[in-house]
Parts: sequence; structure tokens; C-alpha cells
Amino acid sequence: MPNKPTIVIDTLGSDRGPETVIEGAKLVLAENPELDLTLVGDEEQIRNSGIDLSRVKIIHAPHALTNYDNPVAAFYDKSADYSVFKALEEVGKDENAIGMISSGSTGALLVGVVRYLLDEERHRPALAAILPATTGGVTCLVDTGASIDCGPHQLVEFAHLGSDFMKKLYKIESPRVGLLSNGSEPGKGNKVVKETHQLLAADKSINFIGNIEGNHALTGDCDVLVADGFAGNQVLKNTEGTALVLIGEMMKWGKMTGHELEAKMIAGHLMKTYDFQSLGAGVMLGVRKYVLKCRGSSNADSIKNVAKILVNVHNNKTFYE
Amino acid sequence: MPNKPTIVIDTLGSDRGPETVIEGAKLVLAENPELDLTLVGDEEQIRNSGIDLSRVKIIHAPHALTNYDNPVAAFYDKSADYSVFKALEEVGKDENAIGMISSGSTGALLVGVVRYLLDEERHRPALAAILPATTGGVTCLVDTGASIDCGPHQLVEFAHLGSDFMKKLYKIESPRVGLLSNGSEPGKGNKVVKETHQLLAADKSINFIGNIEGNHALTGDCDVLVADGFAGNQVLKNTEGTALVLIGEMMKWGKMTGHELEAKMIAGHLMKTYDFQSLGAGVMLGVRKYVLKCRGSSNADSIKNVAKILVNVHNNKTFYE
Repeated sequence: MPNKPTIVIDTLGSDRGPETVIEGAKLVLAENPELDLTLVGDEEQIRNSGIDLSRVKIIHAPHALTNYDNPVAAFYDKSADYSVFKALEEVGKDENAIGMISSGSTGALLVGVVRYLLDEERHRPALAAILPATTGGVTCLVDTGASIDCGPHQLVEFAHLGSDFMKKLYKIESPRVGLLSNGSEPGKGNKVVKETHQLLAADKSINFIGNIEGNHALTGDCDVLVADGFAGNQVLKNTEGTALVLIGEMMKWGKMTGHELEAKMIAGHLMKTYDFQSLGAGVMLGVRKYVLKCRGSSNADSIKNVAKILVNVHNNKTFYE
Repeated sequence: MPNKPTIVIDTLGSDRGPETVIEGAKLVLAENPELDLTLVGDEEQIRNSGIDLSRVKIIHAPHALTNYDNPVAAFYDKSADYSVFKALEEVGKDENAIGMISSGSTGALLVGVVRYLLDEERHRPALAAILPATTGGVTCLVDTGASIDCGPHQLVEFAHLGSDFMKKLYKIESPRVGLLSNGSEPGKGNKVVKETHQLLAADKSINFIGNIEGNHALTGDCDVLVADGFAGNQVLKNTEGTALVLIGEMMKWGKMTGHELEAKMIAGHLMKTYDFQSLGAGVMLGVRKYVLKCRGSSNADSIKNVAKILVNVHNNKTFYE
């Protein structure tokens, strides 16, 4: 299978089991005839799954890492073959590999990325999320949980990573960078945010527009929203949690009042407009190849959608084209 | 007007102007015949507003503090009479005053509270919010922005303040305390959160149930959600922002598809169930009298609703009874 572009998929670590991920891989092959796949996981299971083996390379690495495992200890544990590390190693060395998809532990991905894929000038990768904006555009939230306890210089680095990403993949000439804070005034924030504000304001290579509050994460006020991983994680998960709560309440109301059909239609529209499955797809920034992290609860369709992002990027289209 | 319970209302500092707050005060009087009010602000304006002056004490303090003013400098500036400080002073010394309502700057409230109303054993007050839960109950989020850059011991104090509050006002015997983090596993969090987790787990006087992620802020998993003010502020504002975005999108869809009426009905139901106006009403904890902070954008009805909370508390009912 020489020279065909390939996506590496870690089949283990998903909350829904490897079957779901392999089903997703089949959808990817069906939708992308020009693409091959490398599947990492339990060889026998992949072989017996009914997937088109003529287009699939299998790497046998049958051990899954959970959120409860220590990823650093696991990385140095030579008695087990963890799929996530094998997958990252493969995407690093296979010239045809355009990127990798995993629905496993974020911690494990970070450890593996640092070892196999980190840009030379970076210390740590960032995990960005692409949030839908009411304006019809998107906002790149960086970081969403990869780097916790960041200093000001790290947050400035996030601003650069996010800007570069939005320039390249959304063709935005001068991405507007906002800084997540607890008030819009320049003096609002914790110590790190206040110091970061000064640094960003002084950085001529960035189009810094000031502080952004949590209620403006979805309003398209900025193209890049910079946050420490702890706070960014709150924004990401809270957005998703609030949306699910409201949609659930809407369905309950529909049942109670006999407007079930309308409630279902609205819920369907919202779920499509604010695609919460792909909200969960994090993009590693500061790495040599694209690594996309799906939510642990992603279904086969999400795997297919995330693969489409990689294909678009490879074809130099915009992200969701 | 001796011995009648009184609520002190700061009429200045609202985004909608003092007229709106004074309109709210009229609604409070109409709904609570047993109550008197002390209004702080521009005496002439209050006098000419048409409010029933036989039930109102006026304190003339015509200067409003904005979010852009430095509250500490303002506190020591004797050339101006800031309504928020006068109101706090009054509630501290008037025995009949059951509490105070302000829609002005949080920073100013904090500075004034520390001076006039702080519990003797406290260093700083906390600003809690009462979030509606899908279970039908509520969750007390503490802190929402009063204390930034908290250490672990401060977060433990928040746990105690929140527990006491939920015991007293919601008659919950043993409130379940959760700690906001970026993962449910005990090892997840920033440095302060990890250390706080240990302290809370060891504290026998608290019913600690572990870490809570941002997508579970509204699911009623805990009665008290402990957070540093920076992260708590993200949860509060993001919940509100996401809800408004979804409701806006719902209305747009209704217009586009000819289901305007159904969309309006659902939006109305959601706005009522998750009362975002009173979401914005923060409760100061760790103070000698109740101080309720409305959102700057609160309307007259919100003022009335917030006053009702104070009256219920005074009558030893539960919070929203």
C-alpha cells in the first residue's frame, strides 16, 4: 500500500469498546476511497471484524490505558503493549500517515505525543477544541485540559499556537485572540491571567482583543480563546453539560405538553448546529502531525467525522469543508 | 417605623439605571405589606419616583461605583458618597435590617462587606450562586468570583460555608460536597485542587463526595460545588451563556420553519425552569447578614424575586419557598 495517505486509529480506550471504533473505521474507508488505515489494537479482533483488510495495516498492541492508569509509568512499562503509544510511534515514523485518531486517555496521548511528535521548540502540546459560534464561525479554545497550572509564557504560547492554527485551517488572516477571564476589564483575572494580559497586549505578532468572559465562549467574539487547561476544561465541559441539560428538559416538556414532535425537531436542529460529538474532538497543537482526540463516548459516526477533518486538512481545505 | 423588618436596597450601580431598581423596590413593597425598605442613592430621585414614602427610609449617597473603579481607593475616598458602602454600613448597624440587595460592582460589595459585615473568624467573604439542578433541587456553587487565587484551606472554608448554608436554608441534613475539577478521578486537578481534595477527604465534618466535572454542574450530583472564584465564575457565566445561545438558536429555528409559537413556548419553559435572572443573584457567605448581589442587568422583577428570598430566609422558610 505505498504512497496512499493513511490515518492511524487507536481502536482501544473508547468507553464504547473497540467494536464501535472499528465500525467507525469501516465508515471512514467507505467514505474515503483514496485513503488507507492503520488500526492499532487487538489483531485478532480487527482481523475478524469484517473490515476490508486489503486497505488496512494492523499493529498488534492489545493493551488499553484507562484514565485511572498513570500514563508515565505505563510508557516505561515494557511488559505491556499499549495501543495509544504504538499508534503515536507509527504516525511519527510513517511518511504516509496524515494523522491519528484516539478516543482513549488524554494523559496517555500527551505522554506519547511528547515522546514521538512534539515540535522541537515546544515543551508541551496543547489540546484545542473547536467551539461553534453563534455568528456561524468557530472559536478555537486552547487549552482544554492538556496543560494545567500554566504560567503566563505558556498562555502566550497557546495564543500563538491557536493563531497559527486558525490562519492555516480557517484561512483567517489575523485571528482575534481573547483571554478567558472573570471580567472583561483588563485588571480582572487571577495572577497568571493578569500577567498574561500584559504580555499579550505587548505582543505585536498577535491580534489581542482583551479579556473574554465565560458567557462569551460561544458568541464568536474572538477566533482564539486562550485559557489554562483547568479553566478551559470547565468551559468545554460546562458548555456541553448545559446544552444536554436544556435539550433533555426540552424533550421532557414536549412529552408533558403533547409537543413531542416539535421538541424533537428543535433538539435535532440544536444537536446538529452545535455538534457536541465533535465539540469533544480535541486537536493537539504544537505537534508535527495532527492528533485528534475524540471523546471516550464517541460513536462510529464521530470517528468518521473526525477522519473527515484530517482528510480536509490534508487536502488543504478548511477544517470542516 | 420601629421594629418592622427592613431590606436595604442600593439603587445605584445597575446597568439599567436607578429607575429600574426603584421600580423593583415598588414591587417589593406591594408584595410584602409587612416590610419596610431603606433605599440608598440619590434622595431627590427616590423622593420623586412615586414610591410610598411612608414605608421608605432614604439615605442620600448619590455616587455609583462602576466595575472600572478601584473599590479600595473608592472606599477611602471621603470626597464621594458611594451608595454601596452606605448601604452596607446601614445593614450592619440597623437591627431591623434583614439583608441588603445590590446590583452594582462585586468588587465594591466585597470591600464594603469586609469592613462592615464580615464574620469575625473569616478573612474574606465568598460569593455563592444557587444553580438549578435537573433533579429538581439546587446546587450551591461557591465561590463564583469573590475570591481569586485561593489556596487549599480557603477552598475547604468554602466547603464549610456552603454546607452550613444548605443545611440552614434548604434543610439538607448532610449536604454532599463536590470539588470542581477537570476530571472525576481523585488525582485530577491543578495543584491547589489536588491538595484540597486530600484535605476535604480527611475532614470528617464534611460529606465530601469527590471531584465534579464542569458538565455536572447542573445535574444535581452534589449540593455544594466548591471552586476557586476564577473557575467558579467560568461555570456560572458559561452556563448562562450557553443557555442564552441555545434559546436564541431555538427562536431563530422557530421563525425559519414556521414553528415560532412552539419555540416560544419551549423557550419560556426553559427560562422559567432555569431562571437565569436569579442565577445571577449571588449570595455572600461568611457575613453577619445576608447580602444578595443581583446581576447588573437585572430588571425590576428580579429585584422583587431576590427580596422574596430574603423574606423567606427571615421567616425561616427555605430559600425559594
